[in-house]
Amino acid sequence: MNIAFLGLGNMGVAMATNLLEAGHQLTVYNRTASKAAPLEKLGATVVATPAEAVQDAAIVFSMVTDDAALEALCTGPDGLLPALPKGAVHASCSTVAPDTNRRLAEAHTEHGAHLVAAPVFGKPDAAASAKLWLIMAGDDEAKKTLRPVLEVLGQAPAQDFGTDPGAANIVKLCGNFMLGAAIEAMAEAFTLAQKSGLDRQQVYEFFTSTLFNLPIYKNYGKLVAERHYQPVGAAPAIIRKDLRLVLDEARTQTVSMPFANIIFDQLSATVAKKEEVDWAGFAERVAENAGL
Amino acid sequence: MNIAFLGLGNMGVAMATNLLEAGHQLTVYNRTASKAAPLEKLGATVVATPAEAVQDAAIVFSMVTDDAALEALCTGPDGLLPALPKGAVHASCSTVAPDTNRRLAEAHTEHGAHLVAAPVFGKPDAAASAKLWLIMAGDDEAKKTLRPVLEVLGQAPAQDFGTDPGAANIVKLCGNFMLGAAIEAMAEAFTLAQKSGLDRQQVYEFFTSTLFNLPIYKNYGKLVAERHYQPVGAAPAIIRKDLRLVLDEARTQTVSMPFANIIFDQLSATVAKKEEVDWAGFAERVAENAGL
Repeated sequence: MNIAFLGLGNMGVAMATNLLEAGHQLTVYNRTASKAAPLEKLGATVVATPAEAVQDAAIVFSMVTDDAALEALCTGPDGLLPALPKGAVHASCSTVAPDTNRRLAEAHTEHGAHLVAAPVFGKPDAAASAKLWLIMAGDDEAKKTLRPVLEVLGQAPAQDFGTDPGAANIVKLCGNFMLGAAIEAMAEAFTLAQKSGLDRQQVYEFFTSTLFNLPIYKNYGKLVAERHYQPVGAAPAIIRKDLRLVLDEARTQTVSMPFANIIFDQLSATVAKKEEVDWAGFAERVAENAGL
Repeated sequence: MNIAFLGLGNMGVAMATNLLEAGHQLTVYNRTASKAAPLEKLGATVVATPAEAVQDAAIVFSMVTDDAALEALCTGPDGLLPALPKGAVHASCSTVAPDTNRRLAEAHTEHGAHLVAAPVFGKPDAAASAKLWLIMAGDDEAKKTLRPVLEVLGQAPAQDFGTDPGAANIVKLCGNFMLGAAIEAMAEAFTLAQKSGLDRQQVYEFFTSTLFNLPIYKNYGKLVAERHYQPVGAAPAIIRKDLRLVLDEARTQTVSMPFANIIFDQLSATVAKKEEVDWAGFAERVAENAGL
């Protein structure tokens, strides 16, 4: 199947590689063209604009940093929308505001094509080993077309959240918020234990081999326990944007989210300090505030 | 082995039953004597005071509600301490302040006996099926004596947190705090999703079968998703006491714990409203504050 892949960051390259290895014809585009080199070696066609990338595509994937980048990709100069073949399905994988995907989905429909919101859960290493968790929301026929291709990227069937494309983004935002809450909780617990004379590492190992024996606690918890936030899976500014979207939605829907406000502030401080760490590095704010 | 078991609430009865079924001779005491009836049927000797319970015991277990109840058990009228045989080991399983166990451990040592802090993780159903997670801290020889008996109650070896008995209580407090954080995070996420038009139950099922596929998220999350907080595993007042101990320790050690403050306040509101629910029922505060 002719597939276009737009946006070749850490996540995009890993996902595009799996689509190539599943035997699909891939045309790829990235704003910084050099990122496409490894995919070109695997047989992908590299082009210079989103419009060129999608002109023969049955399915288009996009995976970019934020709402502005996604809008530029779709409706900016040389954007994909005017060039998209009728009936094509655009899997919008970026973490963006629900309304951004809703608005773009309408524009796709007017054009005779479809946008399905399909944000993914997992770090770049999960993307590389095709172990993402998948969800999708949008037009039912379009989801049917997308499903077998999307599922190449995941470890389980994609969960269907209905026909409102924004719904998938809300689920994604809830997930990143809950991850942030797990990180803050570990940071507070490990810091209290350490200041009370315990071995931070032993407390981490105990909890993540018993009550909290789960990859997200093990993986993020290791960074928090060791207070060493490398490598950078996602930068603090990226996930701060996600928490901002959580709080935007909470304000729109009139929901009080005290935990989300705290995580957002921790991420803001981390971005302000220009630390080059994984986003879990916001856990350092807890250690610092305890004088560690 | 002659074992005494003091404190027969939901947890205590389940733990004592497993000790009986492992073939130990059990003498049991509870302030409200009627709670001992099922154990008597299984062969336990029921006595009227803590002092009577421990007079021939090599190992004593205590599992009571709070610090005051534990102190009364040890040093109150007919308390166990004067009656405790030399060399006996008292496994203090209650969730109490680190300093309470430290102080009582010194009193035991003066008496020629030992107190080992051995708080347990798990609800009454985990206690009944001998699937608790176990930790202990205190005198090394005493822990060696206690270990094979204690491990009858658990699903894995007891993790040793060193010779300071208070250390085990700090780990226990950290664990209850982290559970509370998981519950508040789910409450905020599910409420945001519901008010954004999603099915609360579907969001719960998605997360607890993927990123958060863990018994604590599944079990507490089910209550939060259904907004039905029965049966009562632990009452809100009990866990509010635990969060109070977390904040006491945080103040003593000068640690800023914004999440812990929020959970404590949610539990305070739940206690004030006199709701007869499981402690996870504090999640209702999030739903209420969102107008649900």
